[in-house]
Amino acid sequence: MYELGVVYRNIERTDSAIADALAPLGSATVHEAMGRVGLMKPYMRPIYPGAQVSGTAVTVLLHPGDNWMLHVVAEQIRPGDVVVAALSAECTDGFFGDLLATSFQARGARALIIDAGVRDVKTLTEMKFAVWSRAISSKGTVKATLGSVNIPVVCAGMVVHPGDAIVADDDGVVCVPRAMAAKTLEAARAREANEGDKRAKLASGVLGLDLYKMREPLEKAGLRYID
Amino acid sequence: MYELGVVYRNIERTDSAIADALAPLGSATVHEAMGRVGLMKPYMRPIYPGAQVSGTAVTVLLHPGDNWMLHVVAEQIRPGDVVVAALSAECTDGFFGDLLATSFQARGARALIIDAGVRDVKTLTEMKFAVWSRAISSKGTVKATLGSVNIPVVCAGMVVHPGDAIVADDDGVVCVPRAMAAKTLEAARAREANEGDKRAKLASGVLGLDLYKMREPLEKAGLRYID
Amino acid sequence: MYELGVVYRNIERTDSAIADALAPLGSATVHEAMGRVGLMKPYMRPIYPGAQVSGTAVTVLLHPGDNWMLHVVAEQIRPGDVVVAALSAECTDGFFGDLLATSFQARGARALIIDAGVRDVKTLTEMKFAVWSRAISSKGTVKATLGSVNIPVVCAGMVVHPGDAIVADDDGVVCVPRAMAAKTLEAARAREANEGDKRAKLASGVLGLDLYKMREPLEKAGLRYID
Amino acid sequence: MYELGVVYRNIERTDSAIADALAPLGSATVHEAMGRVGLMKPYMRPIYPGAQVSGTAVTVLLHPGDNWMLHVVAEQIRPGDVVVAALSAECTDGFFGDLLATSFQARGARALIIDAGVRDVKTLTEMKFAVWSRAISSKGTVKATLGSVNIPVVCAGMVVHPGDAIVADDDGVVCVPRAMAAKTLEAARAREANEGDKRAKLASGVLGLDLYKMREPLEKAGLRYID
Amino acid sequence: MYELGVVYRNIERTDSAIADALAPLGSATVHEAMGRVGLMKPYMRPIYPGAQVSGTAVTVLLHPGDNWMLHVVAEQIRPGDVVVAALSAECTDGFFGDLLATSFQARGARALIIDAGVRDVKTLTEMKFAVWSRAISSKGTVKATLGSVNIPVVCAGMVVHPGDAIVADDDGVVCVPRAMAAKTLEAARAREANEGDKRAKLASGVLGLDLYKMREPLEKAGLRYID
Amino acid sequence: MYELGVVYRNIERTDSAIADALAPLGSATVHEAMGRVGLMKPYMRPIYPGAQVSGTAVTVLLHPGDNWMLHVVAEQIRPGDVVVAALSAECTDGFFGDLLATSFQARGARALIIDAGVRDVKTLTEMKFAVWSRAISSKGTVKATLGSVNIPVVCAGMVVHPGDAIVADDDGVVCVPRAMAAKTLEAARAREANEGDKRAKLASGVLGLDLYKMREPLEKAGLRYID
Repeated sequence: MYELGVVYRNIERTDSAIADALAPLGSATVHEAMGRVGLMKPYMRPIYPGAQVSGTAVTVLLHPGDNWMLHVVAEQIRPGDVVVAALSAECTDGFFGDLLATSFQARGARALIIDAGVRDVKTLTEMKFAVWSRAISSKGTVKATLGSVNIPVVCAGMVVHPGDAIVADDDGVVCVPRAMAAKTLEAARAREANEGDKRAKLASGVLGLDLYKMREPLEKAGLRYID
Repeated sequence: MYELGVVYRNIERTDSAIADALAPLGSATVHEAMGRVGLMKPYMRPIYPGAQVSGTAVTVLLHPGDNWMLHVVAEQIRPGDVVVAALSAECTDGFFGDLLATSFQARGARALIIDAGVRDVKTLTEMKFAVWSRAISSKGTVKATLGSVNIPVVCAGMVVHPGDAIVADDDGVVCVPRAMAAKTLEAARAREANEGDKRAKLASGVLGLDLYKMREPLEKAGLRYID
Repeated sequence: MYELGVVYRNIERTDSAIADALAPLGSATVHEAMGRVGLMKPYMRPIYPGAQVSGTAVTVLLHPGDNWMLHVVAEQIRPGDVVVAALSAECTDGFFGDLLATSFQARGARALIIDAGVRDVKTLTEMKFAVWSRAISSKGTVKATLGSVNIPVVCAGMVVHPGDAIVADDDGVVCVPRAMAAKTLEAARAREANEGDKRAKLASGVLGLDLYKMREPLEKAGLRYID
Repeated sequence: MYELGVVYRNIERTDSAIADALAPLGSATVHEAMGRVGLMKPYMRPIYPGAQVSGTAVTVLLHPGDNWMLHVVAEQIRPGDVVVAALSAECTDGFFGDLLATSFQARGARALIIDAGVRDVKTLTEMKFAVWSRAISSKGTVKATLGSVNIPVVCAGMVVHPGDAIVADDDGVVCVPRAMAAKTLEAARAREANEGDKRAKLASGVLGLDLYKMREPLEKAGLRYID
Repeated sequence: MYELGVVYRNIERTDSAIADALAPLGSATVHEAMGRVGLMKPYMRPIYPGAQVSGTAVTVLLHPGDNWMLHVVAEQIRPGDVVVAALSAECTDGFFGDLLATSFQARGARALIIDAGVRDVKTLTEMKFAVWSRAISSKGTVKATLGSVNIPVVCAGMVVHPGDAIVADDDGVVCVPRAMAAKTLEAARAREANEGDKRAKLASGVLGLDLYKMREPLEKAGLRYID
Repeated sequence: MYELGVVYRNIERTDSAIADALAPLGSATVHEAMGRVGLMKPYMRPIYPGAQVSGTAVTVLLHPGDNWMLHVVAEQIRPGDVVVAALSAECTDGFFGDLLATSFQARGARALIIDAGVRDVKTLTEMKFAVWSRAISSKGTVKATLGSVNIPVVCAGMVVHPGDAIVADDDGVVCVPRAMAAKTLEAARAREANEGDKRAKLASGVLGLDLYKMREPLEKAGLRYID
């Protein structure tokens, strides 16, 4: 399905004002705002807690045990980008460490999302370079085979097109297709606006059963209380 | 096996003095005190390190992708309870986030034990609402099908009856049946009393081989030393 | 494959000056210096972040659910050792807790590497006793069957001979055979010496493509740029 | 949670006429007839295809690596029973082989359901002794620790009480609580009676959309067709 | 990422002569002919050995525990189609059984590829209705929420567009994008043509080392023979 | 730990009369005869049921996604050998198919044991070339990096030295070190000799409790019968 050995240099990125505005809303709210889709598989975990980023995707397809294309994708990074690395087959090797992170950071990348392993995680944490990965592993890689840069990829079960918006935090990683980004931001903000009020009510002891008027539909569905 | 669509309102809880006294003893000591049973599977992990709680179980059975019953169980929570959520089939969706946590905390719940995923973990950590789960995931859920509240459930491989005592810490989650709680507390305290003395001896360099008089049984079992 | 019921008391350890010098280089650099071999499977994780140790291996073979031999191996520990515990079949029980850690620490052990579970992780973290394990579990064990001490073992997919050097950090656990330790240390230091300069260049915006002269081999391999 | 070291000799079994009648209906129909509950986790697989059995449960709790209690449970088997073996912690060892199968078969057992491994599967297949297990493994076990016989157990995520009815086939293993067996049989037969007619209609090209009158509810739910 | 609640009725299918011709070549040859891409994850297994099919994809997106859309997709099947069912989150429930298979077969479907579970596998095997799935499970599903039909989906890690060609056999499932199908067929036939001659030489004892002229590149890569 | 880029041509093989005699005894009996060690992890499964082989190991170390060394090892095969292929990191790609099988068979190999995936399993089954693997996958591999032949390897958790004896059947794969092969064969035959008599007694209804005189030790261990 993949076109191999190509680097697309000109991609259309999600408007940066929109992509930037997604981070504070968080992956859960954005995912809900899209209709509960767009989330990568939950095995994708941050290498340190607390990172919360959004940005525009540059994509790269890697082969197991080979990180050559991570050097190729580095040149395509622009400030505000998030690199999304997919694999042609499952692998947990450590494709990325502190030297590549230094280069990515110098180019303006905000994070790496990789469906494989990374290493040097202590240094990456000190550098505050955010990474979401499926594994942590010292296992090194070779530089021998061509993948591609800025083609559509499947990363952790989710399709990512170059230029899509990415939101990632402690809850996971969400991909927002470029064409849906503006509408998603709007919907996510609307959800968010609602939440403060709800939280106050719930904190005061009001039950969700009453706040969301669930008693009647539960009764209709047949719920019985037994004393 | 499960009775669906029912909420038992009146359950007999383990005596709160007993349930409360289990937390400082920890899951490992309590599990040993019961004869090495009662532990949920080790895939159940705390969302942040350091939480150590005990309390009385209110149980809820959920279906994959549907968190409706978490609102129903909220009403049944009393101060000192721990909510134990089981699933009718495996699922890693994020059933629980900061709004439900606010509600549970307002009702007096001490923790959630859930054989599925949760989200908003950064906020839950800030709120100090303790959760043990099998996954972390932004994936939202619907509110469409009935499970039950306060029926016996199987959570992470362990049967939990409503009112049982639960102990959870960084080592895992243990269920103490209500009828065994008093005796278990006593046995756990006896184990604990012993440990200070042992620790001092081991710290001074005394070997477990001598402290526990293992040399003879090891020799009988046939252990050979080779120089 | 394993000789059961034996304890080898006299083993040849890697020179301590060499074993000690590996820790600051880290598991990734050491693994690369050996030609990308020697790494245990990446499911081996530290129980707390930040630990970075090296030392000489004393090995122990355990059976599922039985930690008797951990008391036997304690007597064979010398200052600077790392205990490497292998299992005869997969198991996630908690074989090791704060009492054994007190004893191991008193004997001078620097860490435990165990292809199974451990418990009391909060206390172990406070004691700063470093552990890499495949699981955390309260599940206790019996003391009934003989394994062996200081025989060659397979731990997390890697052969470890008694006296080999072990390096472990947040990225994983590497075993350096005794005969290769001196050469590996030298090679690792050579790699390390190189890295400062590279890091500075990458931080200034130089691309790996240019720093490592990859453009020509990439072109030869057929990489095409599309605008 | 488990009572250890006991053998209950007198258990109330599901009526044999009822238990026997479940096999031809199959696990899927029986599971549906109970309201979609009662199914063990799908990692439980038959060691050969085509077996389809039902019977009354005698239960046994085993510890990892120890099959002593399988000899104890053998004595409690009556013709028409299915042995259900649960484990106190996860284990894939081969607890059961051709000798035990010979004994179980001689006692009248119809099958073994075991949340662990078995071996001698070629011979078991030739003997037509049906087994559902989580693994196949040559790994032998010891005979050293006490479990229990005919206590309630959790097997592959499902509670089984001694005397419950068990139905197992290529689709999985279902436990029908004794008290629900008669009603479940009736409901399963009703479902079955319906199916022949439906199958004929579907085979003739009638769509489920029409047969089950789904077009209106789908439209109400918002389904849109695009040409 | 997914458009929900829509059914695309008019899709462009891969030319049937091309799609049909892929089956005898097999998934491995076709996957190689595409440049080693297009393969679904290897957890996708046939429910019985020996099936070997190809056809044109009609796609359906399902939600965990809900098979409503399988009835919707049935209407869109044309003779020669293969139904590809993706899930919005991981699930092993049994979404598909003998009644749906009867309907699919009546409509002309050649197979089902589903990233979830199926049931009634004994009957499906007797019907010779081929299925590749990630699980087998009796677990039934509800009919409550809308997915979509004939949108692009990610199934077992691979993107499938409606109308793509699918090839499946005992080795796995490959998706050939419609635009690449003609070229892929040609390349696969070329590979196949070569193989008979190679097989004869290898069977006569000629080594691959000589047949493929590998001795020189191996020597250049540094391979050393030690006697 | 591994020496890379070398091929040892002269290895000492287990005496062929001994190696050949192990197959009919089977993996379970041989594993018991060695003291319950030597078994590879149970994820190693035969690609078709019923194969039962033994022979002498020639070993090969492969890198993920690269099968070059399988051509190198082919030349080192002698009649009666079993090829044991280990991986330097986990991988499920299909390293081996019908062409390599043709070559291996022509050289006299009896089987392949590979800690990775294979393909063309329908043809391999027709050829009766036995394979035990961790996966089945169409995924092809490259020929780019050097591993080694006839060095000691870790395959599926077990150390295998070149020349060791291998026994494999439906229950799994066992490695018998060369130095232990004669003694193991003798012990396995002794076990086997015993079994016929035991089987007859158990078939007649004698209980293992009586046959193995377990009643007294069970009572001593505290077993209680409750009526």
